[in-house]
Amino acid sequence: MAAQFSMTRRVEFSDTDMAGIVHFVNFYRYMEQAEHEFFRSLGLSIMQKQADGTVIGWPRVSAACTFEAPAYYDDLLEVRLSVVCKGVKSLTMKFEFWRDETRIARGQLKTACCLCRHDAPIKSIEIPPSYSEKIEEAG
Amino acid sequence: MAAQFSMTRRVEFSDTDMAGIVHFVNFYRYMEQAEHEFFRSLGLSIMQKQADGTVIGWPRVSAACTFEAPAYYDDLLEVRLSVVCKGVKSLTMKFEFWRDETRIARGQLKTACCLCRHDAPIKSIEIPPSYSEKIEEAG
Amino acid sequence: MAAQFSMTRRVEFSDTDMAGIVHFVNFYRYMEQAEHEFFRSLGLSIMQKQADGTVIGWPRVSAACTFEAPAYYDDLLEVRLSVVCKGVKSLTMKFEFWRDETRIARGQLKTACCLCRHDAPIKSIEIPPSYSEKIEEAG
Amino acid sequence: MAAQFSMTRRVEFSDTDMAGIVHFVNFYRYMEQAEHEFFRSLGLSIMQKQADGTVIGWPRVSAACTFEAPAYYDDLLEVRLSVVCKGVKSLTMKFEFWRDETRIARGQLKTACCLCRHDAPIKSIEIPPSYSEKIEEAG
Repeated sequence: MAAQFSMTRRVEFSDTDMAGIVHFVNFYRYMEQAEHEFFRSLGLSIMQKQADGTVIGWPRVSAACTFEAPAYYDDLLEVRLSVVCKGVKSLTMKFEFWRDETRIARGQLKTACCLCRHDAPIKSIEIPPSYSEKIEEAG
Repeated sequence: MAAQFSMTRRVEFSDTDMAGIVHFVNFYRYMEQAEHEFFRSLGLSIMQKQADGTVIGWPRVSAACTFEAPAYYDDLLEVRLSVVCKGVKSLTMKFEFWRDETRIARGQLKTACCLCRHDAPIKSIEIPPSYSEKIEEAG
Repeated sequence: MAAQFSMTRRVEFSDTDMAGIVHFVNFYRYMEQAEHEFFRSLGLSIMQKQADGTVIGWPRVSAACTFEAPAYYDDLLEVRLSVVCKGVKSLTMKFEFWRDETRIARGQLKTACCLCRHDAPIKSIEIPPSYSEKIEEAG
Repeated sequence: MAAQFSMTRRVEFSDTDMAGIVHFVNFYRYMEQAEHEFFRSLGLSIMQKQADGTVIGWPRVSAACTFEAPAYYDDLLEVRLSVVCKGVKSLTMKFEFWRDETRIARGQLKTACCLCRHDAPIKSIEIPPSYSEKIEEAG
């Protein structure tokens, strides 16, 4: 079964815009926060320094979101994450945003496991077993 | 022919993250800015007060972006917009981000024409002719 | 005694910049969040709709921050708020940011009690007793 | 005479909040942008890679802003920068924000010249002559 994770996030005042609702770009920040909390819950980090000084990071391949109902300042949103595809080099997660019984939005992030060095371009790598196993165990 | 528009945007320092590249949520802000500059170029506003005090706005239905190459601080990005679908009540725009000969990202915004009132829920409406005609003329 | 409040805030990835540290503008967002949590803890809101449809809000008069040590992704920051001056029409709060035994930053917000209406300019008013009393009781 | 610089910045939709005005943290982003454009106008960068791989950067020591009138979506703000103190290791700049004849805000940034390395803490250094001379010539 796919890994599942859920977190609660309160809408901050600075997340709103002059239309009185949450500005849409913040849903991508909320997805990212849920992804990071999910990794943290597994004892993983999305920026993990290796013994040789390189860093394993997870830059985005694509991101999408569909907005179904507005969210407002002070709302407590539940953000539900599920890993829908664990590929060799990438991870695809789906998200749902709920305020009580109302679904606010649905989103998706595809992210690639990469080696980040300061003096070289970012390089896509296979997901190391230390990540794979924990993500699978969470399912 | 579909309406076309292009703007140039410099990457700001605060758009970057600790991976040394533009944080992905900013691409959605850049798409929004291009959309607003496109409207402005037609003499339209994305928050247009009507004679009766209501406001015609354009909340997002969905937004997506695919990231092909990293962008960096100080980059001058060309953001190319094209209207790919003008529906009765909504507008779909595609975007491409270029730095010189490198395509950085491709995105899409679907946005609904809505009546926004302060004491009532947002209500989807048909795109008024005053908008439709200008958007078509831009094609 | 002055009202005191404290909250914990984890640094998010999107709060960092290419220098690898928290971008300084986020400290102002953290101060605002602490202020709002403080109000919430008193049963108050910083955007309170009144029976007549007007809203009591708290726009900023001034804000300042001194940065003493960098903060990093994943840091758990303690944000300590104290009300240092409750004037007739305004509130001044001081803030300290701590990561364990390291003080990261010190800040200040001065904020004015205002009547916000959609068809009129923002107007400064005396802090209503319903706010004053709760803020004083918190001391 | 102190170095002077001025830039124009249009308020973006995502800079507003549910009170219908520019959210105050954006004034700090605007100050930073003006600072960076000022550096750029002198042929300098605020993140300058040196021959030995280190980077000269300018983290903030303190930042402050006083808000005098609200700014709104679509406003064209003039941001005026003046260098008020060029110390041995730091730079203090003042800022004024104007919309036509209305002064919107006044701010200040103090920033320290620093050596940034990826495997060592940030270290304050004397402002190199290559920077000093250009900043003085701008006066």
